[in-house]
Amino acid sequence: MRFTAEITSDGVCERSFTLDDIPGVLWSPAAAADSSDGAQARPLVLLGHGGGQHKKAPAVVARARRLTACGMAAAAIDAPAHGERPKSESDQRCIATIRELMADGEPVISQIATYNAELAVRAIPEWQVTLDALQRTGDLGGTGPVGYWGLSLGTTLGIPLVAAEPRITAAVLGLSGLTGHDTLAEAAARITIPVQFLLQWDDQLIPKDCGLALFDAFASREKTLHANSGGHGDVPAFEPDSSLRFFARHLIS
Amino acid sequence: MRFTAEITSDGVCERSFTLDDIPGVLWSPAAAADSSDGAQARPLVLLGHGGGQHKKAPAVVARARRLTACGMAAAAIDAPAHGERPKSESDQRCIATIRELMADGEPVISQIATYNAELAVRAIPEWQVTLDALQRTGDLGGTGPVGYWGLSLGTTLGIPLVAAEPRITAAVLGLSGLTGHDTLAEAAARITIPVQFLLQWDDQLIPKDCGLALFDAFASREKTLHANSGGHGDVPAFEPDSSLRFFARHLIS
Repeated sequence: MRFTAEITSDGVCERSFTLDDIPGVLWSPAAAADSSDGAQARPLVLLGHGGGQHKKAPAVVARARRLTACGMAAAAIDAPAHGERPKSESDQRCIATIRELMADGEPVISQIATYNAELAVRAIPEWQVTLDALQRTGDLGGTGPVGYWGLSLGTTLGIPLVAAEPRITAAVLGLSGLTGHDTLAEAAARITIPVQFLLQWDDQLIPKDCGLALFDAFASREKTLHANSGGHGDVPAFEPDSSLRFFARHLIS
Repeated sequence: MRFTAEITSDGVCERSFTLDDIPGVLWSPAAAADSSDGAQARPLVLLGHGGGQHKKAPAVVARARRLTACGMAAAAIDAPAHGERPKSESDQRCIATIRELMADGEPVISQIATYNAELAVRAIPEWQVTLDALQRTGDLGGTGPVGYWGLSLGTTLGIPLVAAEPRITAAVLGLSGLTGHDTLAEAAARITIPVQFLLQWDDQLIPKDCGLALFDAFASREKTLHANSGGHGDVPAFEPDSSLRFFARHLIS
């Protein structure tokens, strides 16, 4: 892992890095650099961005800044075929198909699920080596609790990651659903950690029954569904506050 | 309205009252008695208790104390056939039937819906005259915003009340559902104020599809469903905090 840039503003230290060909960002409270004496390892939340978005999309940066204000660190990487990363011809074809269907107002959940499952195969080992490397840096003061926060694409990549990665102990997921013939249900059924799941009642991309079926599939003893009226992009402003309280409850002892 | 007792403890003034044959309680911040100079009317949240409960059940008192800590007032009355109020022979028969079905593990949602609809016919005008009288007392410093907070029976009585009463502008409801042949759907469809609705995913009394159908029925532009794993009595401890933030957001300007 090679840190390539560092900016400190408003009490937040933002360090860009690359690991192999994965570009990422680590956010931590600015005071962290002075206090990495290992007194207590800092909780870290991995942030998965949405489809067509990237590691420094406004919503991702906003979440990172809120987490650091609560004393936690946050990290994001560009998902395969997103942000600074190259798109293969196959990626371009899949994305074009999805965009055409959306433009025509056609159902896209099956195409999104199939393409995202392909991306997940690539994304999971990338998140895992990134987490390995982040826990080896001095920035976190050791190996602390780890959470995952990602909606939409961030959930379809996040569910198999959370199912595969025992270091992650709390997750905020949502804006994704089951299509009846995908691998997401099987991965969700292996998740037993506390989950907060967001669903938009009038989601034009994810029919609410698909979202409810995905929430139902989690094996977690503690799981909470937050469903709000409105479309895919209309998650209310009070939900990130709630997600933050969820992580504070589970990751800060 | 006749105030019959007053106790002040831990910064909360609790005043018992009777209005005709309705016994009730008004909670307000202890400082309120000194500052009822009408500077700004205090928000008031009406608290509906659960089935078999009463106006001073522990969950009701806990909600009232949290509301007063945020500067709001709260009021509860005994629902018909509950608490200090007499049960008619018909009430006793309905309650006995529901208890027998529950003891046998049989579905009870239809019987509960039918009985609660009867209670609602009596409860709605009682809540309305109580609200009239409370707004005339000096305790609230005038006519401020009004909310409603009730689960289970508190919701089946609360929905027709909220639909009928334009003074109520925000409501926390839940642990209730549609049975397919009740009047609750029609009342829910007349509700347009912000609603936070709680549902227990493994509710042994209210099948989750009935709860989801009720949430779907509200006409509110802003409505949020909070569904948690667990049975009817297992609403997590973080939900009342969330309900409190909901009221603070909508009733405190």
